[in-house]
Amino acid sequence: MEKELKVSVIGGGSWATALTKILTTNLSQVCWYMRNSSAIEHIKKTNHNPNYITDVEFDINKLKLTDDINEAVAYGDYLVFAIPSAFLSSEFEKLNLPLSNKNIFSAIKGIEPKSGLIVGEYFHKIYQVPYDNIGVIAGPCHAEEVALERLSYLTIACFNQEKANLFAKAMRTYFVKTKLSDDVIGIEYAAMLKNIYAIAAGIAHGLGYGDNFQSVLMSNAIREMRRYIKRIYKIKRNINNSAYLGDLLVTGYSLFSRNRTFGNMIGKGYTVKSAIMEMNMVAEGYYAVKSAYEINNKHTRKSRTPILDAVYQILYENKKAKQVFSELVNELN
Amino acid sequence: MEKELKVSVIGGGSWATALTKILTTNLSQVCWYMRNSSAIEHIKKTNHNPNYITDVEFDINKLKLTDDINEAVAYGDYLVFAIPSAFLSSEFEKLNLPLSNKNIFSAIKGIEPKSGLIVGEYFHKIYQVPYDNIGVIAGPCHAEEVALERLSYLTIACFNQEKANLFAKAMRTYFVKTKLSDDVIGIEYAAMLKNIYAIAAGIAHGLGYGDNFQSVLMSNAIREMRRYIKRIYKIKRNINNSAYLGDLLVTGYSLFSRNRTFGNMIGKGYTVKSAIMEMNMVAEGYYAVKSAYEINNKHTRKSRTPILDAVYQILYENKKAKQVFSELVNELN
Repeated sequence: MEKELKVSVIGGGSWATALTKILTTNLSQVCWYMRNSSAIEHIKKTNHNPNYITDVEFDINKLKLTDDINEAVAYGDYLVFAIPSAFLSSEFEKLNLPLSNKNIFSAIKGIEPKSGLIVGEYFHKIYQVPYDNIGVIAGPCHAEEVALERLSYLTIACFNQEKANLFAKAMRTYFVKTKLSDDVIGIEYAAMLKNIYAIAAGIAHGLGYGDNFQSVLMSNAIREMRRYIKRIYKIKRNINNSAYLGDLLVTGYSLFSRNRTFGNMIGKGYTVKSAIMEMNMVAEGYYAVKSAYEINNKHTRKSRTPILDAVYQILYENKKAKQVFSELVNELN
Repeated sequence: MEKELKVSVIGGGSWATALTKILTTNLSQVCWYMRNSSAIEHIKKTNHNPNYITDVEFDINKLKLTDDINEAVAYGDYLVFAIPSAFLSSEFEKLNLPLSNKNIFSAIKGIEPKSGLIVGEYFHKIYQVPYDNIGVIAGPCHAEEVALERLSYLTIACFNQEKANLFAKAMRTYFVKTKLSDDVIGIEYAAMLKNIYAIAAGIAHGLGYGDNFQSVLMSNAIREMRRYIKRIYKIKRNINNSAYLGDLLVTGYSLFSRNRTFGNMIGKGYTVKSAIMEMNMVAEGYYAVKSAYEINNKHTRKSRTPILDAVYQILYENKKAKQVFSELVNELN
C-alpha cells in the first residue's frame, strides 16, 4: 500500500479551511497551523472554524491543530500555504527549521510584496527550496462552495509531475476533480492578474458600465493575460484552461470577490484610502497591481496591458476612474 | 461627401428595435419592416415600440415604417435581418423581389431549421446572394443595454472588408464601438453555439451546480467552440475576441437569456415540452442543438463536443439531465 502523504496546511482563513476539509476527506491525519490559538480551541470544542466558512464540520480526530509553525513544518512532507502573500514574511519570523527539504504547494494568490517575487520564486530564492519541490493549487474555486460540497475543479501544478500527481490524489474527492499541470509560473501569474481584472470589473460596474461591456472587458482581459504571461514565461499553454480563464471568470463575475467589491467602491467615487478603510482590509489585487505593473515595465519589450495600466493609474497615480476608463474603452475591442 | 447608406431593418423584436435605434443615430432615414401593423401604428403615434425595449424613443421623421417586405427590400441597399431564424422562410413567402443584388447583414443567431444552413449560406444558396454581399452583426450585446445607451461593442463581419467598413460606420455611435472581421462563417457558428452553452449553463444551475462549476463549464465551452468552428471553417482566428468569447460570456452569465432560462427549467425537472409551454416560446438554442449536433456528426472526423452532446441527449434523446451531467463532469477539466 502507498504510504499516506503527510500534509500540513498553513493558514486559518477560508481557503485554508476549505483545503483542510478537502484533505481530511482523503487522509487520516492533516496538520493544520493557524496563528489564532483561540480559534484552535474553538475548533477542538465545536468541530467548526469560528471565523471562516463556519458551516464546515471537521472530524477532530483527523486534525493535528497547532499554533506553532515549527511543529507544522516538522510534521509535513507537503506544506500547503494558504495565507495572504503580504503576511508570508511575518509568518516566518518564528521559523527555525529549513524548508529546503519540503514540498511546498502554494494556494496563495499574488506576489510577496517585499521581494516582488511570485510565491514559487520566493520559496526558491529566500528558502532555497528546489524548483522540483514547488507547486501551486489553482482554482477556479470559491472556498464557500467547497464547504457546500459543490463540484469544483482544481489544477495542481508542479515542476515535478510525479509530485503533482501524488498531491492531486490527496486532493481528489467526490466533490473535487483535479487536473495536472507543469506551468507553476504561468498559473501563479494568472492567479495574480485575475485579481487585477476583478478590480477592473468592479470599477466598470461602479461607473455604470453594463453586462455588454463586462463581457468585452473579460474577453480583453484573457487576451491581455495571455500576452503578459507569454512574455514572462513562454511555454505552450492553453490560456482557456480552467486554471487561467476559469479562474478569471469565477473572480470577475463573482459579487463576493473582495477585489471586485474594492473596484466597485472606487468606481462609485471612493478614494483608494477610504475604500480600504471601509472594507477594513486590503484586497490582494491592490498589491498585485503595483507588482504586475512594475514587472511589466522592467521588460525592454513590455507587453501591451491597457487594463492593468488603467487600474494602476487609478490606484497609484491618483487619476479619476471615470476619465481613465473613458480612455481605456478605446483600447479594447 | 459620401452618399448615405440606404438601410432596411427586417424584424420587430427587441434586437431589431435596438439596431434601428443605433442606425437612426447616424442616418437621416432608416426603413423598418415588421409584420405587426398595429405596432407600426403605435410607433407612429407614440415614438415607442409597444412590445420590445419600450423605453427607446424614435425620431419618427427618420423612420420609414412598413409592413410590406417588398417595400423594405426595394428601399435598402443594405438589408439587416433580425428575426428568429425559424421564421426566415415564412417571412419570405410574400417576397417577389430578388435579393441577389442586395447586401445582407444578418443579426440572426442560429440556423435556418428547414435547410439546416447558417444564415449566410441560406441567403447564398436559396437567394443567390453572392458571398461578397453577405455579412453578420455580432455581439456581445443585450438589446436592453443598447436602449439604455450603455457602451457596447459590435463586430461587423463581411467577406468584403470595404462593405464591412461602410456598414460599421453606419453603426458606430457614442455608445457603440465596432470592430471589423472577415470571419462571417466562424462568427455565425459561434453565435449559434453560444446559445447551446447558455442552455447548458442553465441546466447546470437548475441541477444545483455552483459558480465554480459554471466557470469551468464556460472555460470548456470556449475550447469546444474553438474545436468545432476550426473543423468547419479553418482560418486564423482568436477565439477570445469579443465576437466569440465575449458573446459566449454575455449569454452564459446572463440571467435574462431565454436559452439559459430554458436550460434552468430543464435542470429543475421540467420536461422539454412543459418548459417550452411554460415559456410560451421556443428558445433559439433548442433548434441550434439539433442542427449543430447533426452538422458535427456528418463529419468523418467529428470534433470532440461533450457539452453539445450532453445537451442533445437531454433535449432530443429524453435522457435525464442529472444523469447526463454526472457523466459530463468527467469529460470536463
